[in-house]
Amino acid sequence: MNGNKPALHTALSPSMLHLYDVNNTIVVIIDVLRATSTIATALYNGAACVVPVDTVARCIALGRTPGTVTAGERDGKIAEGLQNGNSPFEYPRVFIENKTLVLTTTNGTRLLYMALERGAKNIITGSFPNLSAVAAHLIAQKQNVVLACAAWKDRINLEDTLFAGAVIDRVKAYFNINCDSSTIAHTLFMEAKPDIYQFVKDRQASHYLRLSGYGLEKDIRYCLSPDIADILPVYAEGKLTAAYNGDPRPQNITPSF
Amino acid sequence: MNGNKPALHTALSPSMLHLYDVNNTIVVIIDVLRATSTIATALYNGAACVVPVDTVARCIALGRTPGTVTAGERDGKIAEGLQNGNSPFEYPRVFIENKTLVLTTTNGTRLLYMALERGAKNIITGSFPNLSAVAAHLIAQKQNVVLACAAWKDRINLEDTLFAGAVIDRVKAYFNINCDSSTIAHTLFMEAKPDIYQFVKDRQASHYLRLSGYGLEKDIRYCLSPDIADILPVYAEGKLTAAYNGDPRPQNITPSF
Repeated sequence: MNGNKPALHTALSPSMLHLYDVNNTIVVIIDVLRATSTIATALYNGAACVVPVDTVARCIALGRTPGTVTAGERDGKIAEGLQNGNSPFEYPRVFIENKTLVLTTTNGTRLLYMALERGAKNIITGSFPNLSAVAAHLIAQKQNVVLACAAWKDRINLEDTLFAGAVIDRVKAYFNINCDSSTIAHTLFMEAKPDIYQFVKDRQASHYLRLSGYGLEKDIRYCLSPDIADILPVYAEGKLTAAYNGDPRPQNITPSF
Repeated sequence: MNGNKPALHTALSPSMLHLYDVNNTIVVIIDVLRATSTIATALYNGAACVVPVDTVARCIALGRTPGTVTAGERDGKIAEGLQNGNSPFEYPRVFIENKTLVLTTTNGTRLLYMALERGAKNIITGSFPNLSAVAAHLIAQKQNVVLACAAWKDRINLEDTLFAGAVIDRVKAYFNINCDSSTIAHTLFMEAKPDIYQFVKDRQASHYLRLSGYGLEKDIRYCLSPDIADILPVYAEGKLTAAYNGDPRPQNITPSF
């Protein structure tokens, strides 16, 4: 009965991505605190595109083009030579609309490049702020899926696992899920579902502790809130652009919702 | 306040073992279905020792010594040239007492060798049948701990994660646990605790499906039952021997309980 459904797997750390076939597969890059939440927010607020880069130097180089904003942090502070940080609150419509955001993050960007190197051709990014857009897209596409968690220096983290579980909770009827990592993520999410923020806080997630130590409680709350920037970021030719739900083609549009 | 407590981490797959320091650390090798459950059972029933080896050929070679039993399966059948399989039910006292069991398994043995290569000097094995012995030992030793799950070809599995969670549930007051993988394992275990077997069955764990397909429901039930072979297997010089709770030194004893 499940035979005709596409398969869904979850890689809870980049160190396990190689175990899964990323060809003919939609790869969802998940870096909840805060890269993929900020990407969704910037695109939702009308950024022309987001260019993920792996180094501060590359970020500075690309930032020389007019209409470009550079962003990135190291150890909780804006990296030297860059203009902005990684907080989604730095990207309201009045600031980011029609601009290009060049963003350097460690875990999320590295994972995206890793997926590309392994031959992935169909990459989107996911976070609680755009949960519904991701779920609707996966259901509509009827392709195999790998939920790829960025984790923290390859160590599994709570918030990316929870987001994988949230996606599974939405799409599970449409996929054949024979994957214990997915089962674990979904079980964890069901425990957290009544109050995701409180769950992460109570469990003293390692990244929660790291960010709250920098005074970023507000960011954490935002990044754990479903559907407040419900756009679909699609990767093609070096950049992420917003697509409407269910349409895999990148479109340089200002989202109308 | 937690500063004086030793640290506990969980590696949910061998592909993440390198992230954790295994020196000056007790490494608990976990391969619930069925290697470490069978090891506990054979030692509980008086086996002189268990020698874990990585290939069938090596198993056959070591099996030439008198008083030795060779065991190992491939694809659910006793491997050609070996005498026994991996089921704990094959090792009652009347059969295994005072004998050496040379056991070849894929995931568990590979992980144990991986830990040795990374410099681990203090290795024990854990499974539900010897949960209390493992927990008591970790509490008594007051050293850093890595709970190392054997998984299935590097893919995280439900039953090893659950056992890590069960250990954490017993020892958490005695350790500083700043590790999201541990938090995830513990949360999962708390969900399963009322009926571990039913939880694994309901979630259709991938290895449950594999083994139940071979007609091994009885094995699965046994391997998920806490404390029915409550001995502490300690690794030294190529073999696992039984030690009393709280005593790290391997002792060639017939357990008296």
